[in-house]
Amino acid sequence: VAVIGASSSPEKAGHVLLRNIVQGGFPGAVYPVNPRGGEILGLQVCSSVHEVPTTIDLAFIVVGRKQVLSMVEACAEAGVRAVCIVTAGFGEGDAWGKEEQLKIAAVVAQAGMIAIGPNTIGTISMGGLLVGSFVPFPHWQDGPVAIGAQTGIFAGAVALELMSRDTQRIGITASVDIGNRVGIDEVALLEDFALRDEVRVIGFYLEELADPRRFLKLASEVKRTKPVVVLRPGRTAQGASASASHTGSLAQDDAVIDQLLSQHGLVRAEDTADFLAILRAFSFAGVPAGSNVGVVTYSGALGVIASDQIVREGLDVASLEQRTIDRIGALMPDWQLAGNPADLWSAAEIDPEATLRVGFDAMLADSNVDQLLAVMLAVPNIDFPQFRDSFTELRTTYPGKPIHLVLHGGLSERWTSAVEGLGVPVYAETRDAVRAMAATARYAAGRDRVPTAHMAV
Amino acid sequence: VAVIGASSSPEKAGHVLLRNIVQGGFPGAVYPVNPRGGEILGLQVCSSVHEVPTTIDLAFIVVGRKQVLSMVEACAEAGVRAVCIVTAGFGEGDAWGKEEQLKIAAVVAQAGMIAIGPNTIGTISMGGLLVGSFVPFPHWQDGPVAIGAQTGIFAGAVALELMSRDTQRIGITASVDIGNRVGIDEVALLEDFALRDEVRVIGFYLEELADPRRFLKLASEVKRTKPVVVLRPGRTAQGASASASHTGSLAQDDAVIDQLLSQHGLVRAEDTADFLAILRAFSFAGVPAGSNVGVVTYSGALGVIASDQIVREGLDVASLEQRTIDRIGALMPDWQLAGNPADLWSAAEIDPEATLRVGFDAMLADSNVDQLLAVMLAVPNIDFPQFRDSFTELRTTYPGKPIHLVLHGGLSERWTSAVEGLGVPVYAETRDAVRAMAATARYAAGRDRVPTAHMAV
Repeated sequence: VAVIGASSSPEKAGHVLLRNIVQGGFPGAVYPVNPRGGEILGLQVCSSVHEVPTTIDLAFIVVGRKQVLSMVEACAEAGVRAVCIVTAGFGEGDAWGKEEQLKIAAVVAQAGMIAIGPNTIGTISMGGLLVGSFVPFPHWQDGPVAIGAQTGIFAGAVALELMSRDTQRIGITASVDIGNRVGIDEVALLEDFALRDEVRVIGFYLEELADPRRFLKLASEVKRTKPVVVLRPGRTAQGASASASHTGSLAQDDAVIDQLLSQHGLVRAEDTADFLAILRAFSFAGVPAGSNVGVVTYSGALGVIASDQIVREGLDVASLEQRTIDRIGALMPDWQLAGNPADLWSAAEIDPEATLRVGFDAMLADSNVDQLLAVMLAVPNIDFPQFRDSFTELRTTYPGKPIHLVLHGGLSERWTSAVEGLGVPVYAETRDAVRAMAATARYAAGRDRVPTAHMAV
Repeated sequence: VAVIGASSSPEKAGHVLLRNIVQGGFPGAVYPVNPRGGEILGLQVCSSVHEVPTTIDLAFIVVGRKQVLSMVEACAEAGVRAVCIVTAGFGEGDAWGKEEQLKIAAVVAQAGMIAIGPNTIGTISMGGLLVGSFVPFPHWQDGPVAIGAQTGIFAGAVALELMSRDTQRIGITASVDIGNRVGIDEVALLEDFALRDEVRVIGFYLEELADPRRFLKLASEVKRTKPVVVLRPGRTAQGASASASHTGSLAQDDAVIDQLLSQHGLVRAEDTADFLAILRAFSFAGVPAGSNVGVVTYSGALGVIASDQIVREGLDVASLEQRTIDRIGALMPDWQLAGNPADLWSAAEIDPEATLRVGFDAMLADSNVDQLLAVMLAVPNIDFPQFRDSFTELRTTYPGKPIHLVLHGGLSERWTSAVEGLGVPVYAETRDAVRAMAATARYAAGRDRVPTAHMAV
């Protein structure tokens, strides 16, 4: 790979991008390109793309916007296979930028080059071995999620948010910001994600669909094996207007798009938090067999709130089998009635470990329960050394029944660490958990459904 | 104060409550009471309430439920002024418990004692000098918020959540869990909060209003000087049913209650996160003069999402004055148009400090902007040593214009610390920020409105 516009100033995008590639452990050769020559990060700088001694698979272009067109032309002449144009100020900017973008598109098309951008934070792929982005990530975690985004900073913000965490990091095999789409668009990206075995969950941030009919048709095929989660803002007129000035996208009728997304079995996220929670739920916990939720809680009030959210999101509070009621009831003081939600606070005061070993187990063993929501107060009362072991056993015994944890209180961090790697998503808020649970359940129910008609858009 | 049922076992509620009072720095005398006698935490244990050598202002009762009635009777005989009955298993439990609660209520009424509970985590007051609760708080922060709750664990969970944080802690002067309400109910509590100067913001968690007419009438008076935020779950049938088994509350018609709350100018929170965000917004940032929001962001996509949320919550994206557009435009590269939301990413790449010193200042100086929402990527690009100074100056220059910060990314924690104490609420999600901003704006608009009619309930 080459980085055209590589810089020796540590704060410049052309430096951070090069450093990310080098430090990320990219296994191939890396060539900085800058007419000034010299050495950056111990690498010899080529003064032009023509001086690179081998065929370039992918060239990142990080130069001023007036130089971009000539660099793309140079890449075409040099036989570069793909370019990723990071520079902004084209289709989303002024008249000059719009005009210039058309010229770039023409060069790319004529040369038959693969092109990403312009106006992109770049592309991260190979499970994080190629961190071709100017966002400084502290580390990168590989995993089953692939993300496509249409916008400069969003993909970076999302990935940065994830990779900055110590726990509950979602593993991402590829994150591609297609920017202004002179070449690769969301359909090409979806085709690629669909074919890769390592991709099991797909997320898209899209302000506007370039070709809604093709995207939806393809997505409704892909979703039979891989969930496709779409975050598409611009629902209100003012959001749509902000979007127009941001990516130059035209507003599309929101109600129509909404209906089409759901008709084609795609999962629509409401905002960033929702997007991340749903991706985490799919990649950690998997999909439930049905809509019935068992709830265990250490606060009756939080159980009431959870029941509300469950019903509001179209899920059901499971009716428990008598055996389950008996097993949970046996943990409780004699005056308390067992039910769903099961309020285990008093039970935890008697024997905290039993609430997990017996209470959680009873819920998951119930054939009416498809997934478990645990809203816990992370306080010393319920703390015990076998916390991780108990969750390991629950996940092993009931692999088909997702467990979602909501943690409140002082020990939240320690408990979150305790379940790390067990496929248990942890949330700070019940609402986030229930929305993610509902998304996975809706997806599971509609996975094999074929849309009856392809509406005209 | 006395703690009846004080225990020497560190995990028992009767021990934790006593320890919280002692360690919390309660300035008066503390008397543990337990027939076994001995010494707990260095304090001589009295074998009964009659042995306490002075008149007891407040006795906490933390004994088995079969002993509660006789302890309340003993308190009445001994001339105890107030009791706080922590023990659960009464009105919310079985037939025996319901019956027993009536007997307790009769004793309390006849003796003219103030009574809180039963089924309560206790009462925290005097700005945290009296931590009369069995929840083990790491520390307590005094401040302008008073919280009333109707349920055992909820108030504890909320306060624990707050007090476990290192930053953005809301200061709480009193948190009272009225439990099953044999004595003090929400009306009595609201009367008390209304009269105290140190209380500037009031929050209530209520599953059922004991006397809706009196509560609403009083609240619509109180709200002229102090916002009253109500979290009342049980909106769906299943939530209502969970509530019935939790506090023994009857479901009240949700639509009617909702209409009444809003008609009387109360702020209704949706869930715990919302409740806390709104309380924080009132106590940190204060109320805006109108509904117009200025948005600065470091990601166009996040600006689009913010615009959506603003409109959805009934606020407006402010139309900027030409002067503001010029000042912000001067920070941006020539191809970018300044507007609202103002996407300052490219400007930050040029001069990060100017985005705050000039960009934020321009927004706040605009007479069309009532409050500011900043959705920031906390990345090294925008980092600089004067971060705290810049926010101090913005808050000092525009004291009447609330600033709400949403932070994404690796430096979030450091930036959150940097604005500590400046009255700037920090959120992890735009949605939470906008909901809180909308709640403060709606409150400000309706503060002086008198409800035209008191509907029958």
